Amino acid sequence: MKLSQKTILPQGFKAFGVSAGIKKSGKPDLALFFSDTPAKAACLFTSNKIQAAPLRVSKDHLKKSKSFQAIIANSGNANCFTGKIGVRDAKATAAALAKELGIKTESILVSSTGIIGKRLQVDKIKSALPLLVKGLSGAGIEQAKKAIMTTDTFPKTITVKSNIGGKTVVITGVAKGVGMIAPNLATMLVFIFTDAKISQGALKSSLKQAAEKTFNCISVDGCMSTNDTVAILANGKAGNNLINTGKNLAFFSRGLEAVSLELAKLLVKDGEGARKFIRIKVSGAKNFSQAKIAALAVANSNLFKTAVYGENPNFGRIVAAVGASGIDVEEKNLKVHLSSLKKKDIFVDIVLHQGNSSATVYTCDLTPEYIRINAEYN
Amino acid sequence: MKLSQKTILPQGFKAFGVSAGIKKSGKPDLALFFSDTPAKAACLFTSNKIQAAPLRVSKDHLKKSKSFQAIIANSGNANCFTGKIGVRDAKATAAALAKELGIKTESILVSSTGIIGKRLQVDKIKSALPLLVKGLSGAGIEQAKKAIMTTDTFPKTITVKSNIGGKTVVITGVAKGVGMIAPNLATMLVFIFTDAKISQGALKSSLKQAAEKTFNCISVDGCMSTNDTVAILANGKAGNNLINTGKNLAFFSRGLEAVSLELAKLLVKDGEGARKFIRIKVSGAKNFSQAKIAALAVANSNLFKTAVYGENPNFGRIVAAVGASGIDVEEKNLKVHLSSLKKKDIFVDIVLHQGNSSATVYTCDLTPEYIRINAEYN
Repeated sequence: MKLSQKTILPQGFKAFGVSAGIKKSGKPDLALFFSDTPAKAACLFTSNKIQAAPLRVSKDHLKKSKSFQAIIANSGNANCFTGKIGVRDAKATAAALAKELGIKTESILVSSTGIIGKRLQVDKIKSALPLLVKGLSGAGIEQAKKAIMTTDTFPKTITVKSNIGGKTVVITGVAKGVGMIAPNLATMLVFIFTDAKISQGALKSSLKQAAEKTFNCISVDGCMSTNDTVAILANGKAGNNLINTGKNLAFFSRGLEAVSLELAKLLVKDGEGARKFIRIKVSGAKNFSQAKIAALAVANSNLFKTAVYGENPNFGRIVAAVGASGIDVEEKNLKVHLSSLKKKDIFVDIVLHQGNSSATVYTCDLTPEYIRINAEYN
Repeated sequence: MKLSQKTILPQGFKAFGVSAGIKKSGKPDLALFFSDTPAKAACLFTSNKIQAAPLRVSKDHLKKSKSFQAIIANSGNANCFTGKIGVRDAKATAAALAKELGIKTESILVSSTGIIGKRLQVDKIKSALPLLVKGLSGAGIEQAKKAIMTTDTFPKTITVKSNIGGKTVVITGVAKGVGMIAPNLATMLVFIFTDAKISQGALKSSLKQAAEKTFNCISVDGCMSTNDTVAILANGKAGNNLINTGKNLAFFSRGLEAVSLELAKLLVKDGEGARKFIRIKVSGAKNFSQAKIAALAVANSNLFKTAVYGENPNFGRIVAAVGASGIDVEEKNLKVHLSSLKKKDIFVDIVLHQGNSSATVYTCDLTPEYIRINAEYN
């Protein structure tokens, strides 16, 4: 397994990004990812009860087709809390792209990030489609990864190459993070592409498992978006024997988890206003779930995150957050170790002495810059 | 029912406060509240699994005695995460005071707020006890209310007088709030005194009911303390007929709820770094519990609180918080109204259209000052 931050799209994938005029700044805001042939797909969507229109449309598409051939993602408008009109707009986007690409509408994942509650400018997207499709190429990932950014300060990609049964399988992930756009919410969008030949069931379980330990283990401000989407497309071009179970699935899953973990860490490192990267490990827990609940409780404690920003070691705030997390914990069994806060990378080790399970979560500090970004966007 | 911010202790109650030297600043840090006769008592303690030593000792006392005659509260040290020694120190404090007052140890509620994980300086408390007891008087509430303050910018008291069966019943509450002390946690301490004659069962249910709609409906930073304590002492000196059920209990409960609500609002208004007072009402809910969960989710959203600070109306953040709260909610039924953010008092009205229940919670904005207070205390 080889990790590389030089972005290479797997075989048979192309991408591109343009400025459609959704962002007032004129920056790139429309990205397209495309597979030459339909690719098996698996997706995870936000568990927020308020889900943006594109998520609802994409879920429906995936149910029908079990595969995707294209992902279209715009930044600058979340198309969320937009009611029936929003669903119509997401469908219109997919339909126009399907026509342009000559593929089925159900083969398209639509994705949006940006302002909530404002109507998506579908006309602008439609006008940009010919140029977007025309620009598709392997190298176009460079434009695509920028077009999904909001207040991200850098694009986030990673490529992993694994040898599976004598064939090189490439897994490449692209993510946009935890930033805001004129009045709006943070949204995590992660698109992963692989040329692996893999069954849909294996793809789904592998993605779910990887996300549980990576994307579900990060927090910037504890606020859950309405648009979070993690999608993987596998087009089978690597020519490996079908991955379904056993050793080959384990190899593939290891690669996918590595891609997911790297992207998750990049999201936290670029968290709004973040100055410190904090790793919180809870061990000695009864099970993974309890360890994660306790670790996330610390990661979401404003008091803890503010103390880290201030470089003031305060284990009382850690202890209080674990105690308030809802898991069973006894004072006499609780051990906390905090690394020096003077550094950029912070480690918190919490031992519960209740069992053998552990979980690690990643977060950043809470800074005045976070407040500035989110208060003064007008 | 008559509300007054001029603090008058009910009949038979006395108080005083002194500087015992626990706070480095030399400010008052030791308060005593005393009833001439044992008073029926009811208490609510933090649901944090890590509970400070004084809470554990006080719970034990209440179980044994069902009544309290004195409350001793220190600021500057929370006596929390201090293990067996902490419990011994809390017991020693109670024992020394019992001796000084000539009452039973079990008649004493011990309470602490301040730094976590450091040993309580019991010797300093013991040395201060003679002066503290000597100073007890009705007017001494002025000293007592200041001695429980940490970073509170003003003392918090309220008095309500109710006519119950021809007798004037006084309910007076004293609270300390949501502030920090050299490396430490926010803690809410609320002590309520009444001369009402009331059964312990009625007192307990009345307190629980009042707290549910007041102290349990406020949030400054979503961080739960290890030391939160709400206690009520009723010494029966008003000479009313015993309050147990029916109309008289309703009158008493109304007074207690008014005292609790006023103190809760004062706590939020004095929240760390707070510039805005925010009232969030969720109505049209299936039940009170769901309404409260949704309202607290908004109250604890950093993104929402930061938007209020920035005076940037952003209903997307409200919608996202309600959607992430865990309650069932449908976009098409959700209505949100937000008052002008230019004012100091902000109102958020959220209608779910699912039923007839509602809940109101109170919070403040998230400001750079909050971060300064909590990051730069060293």
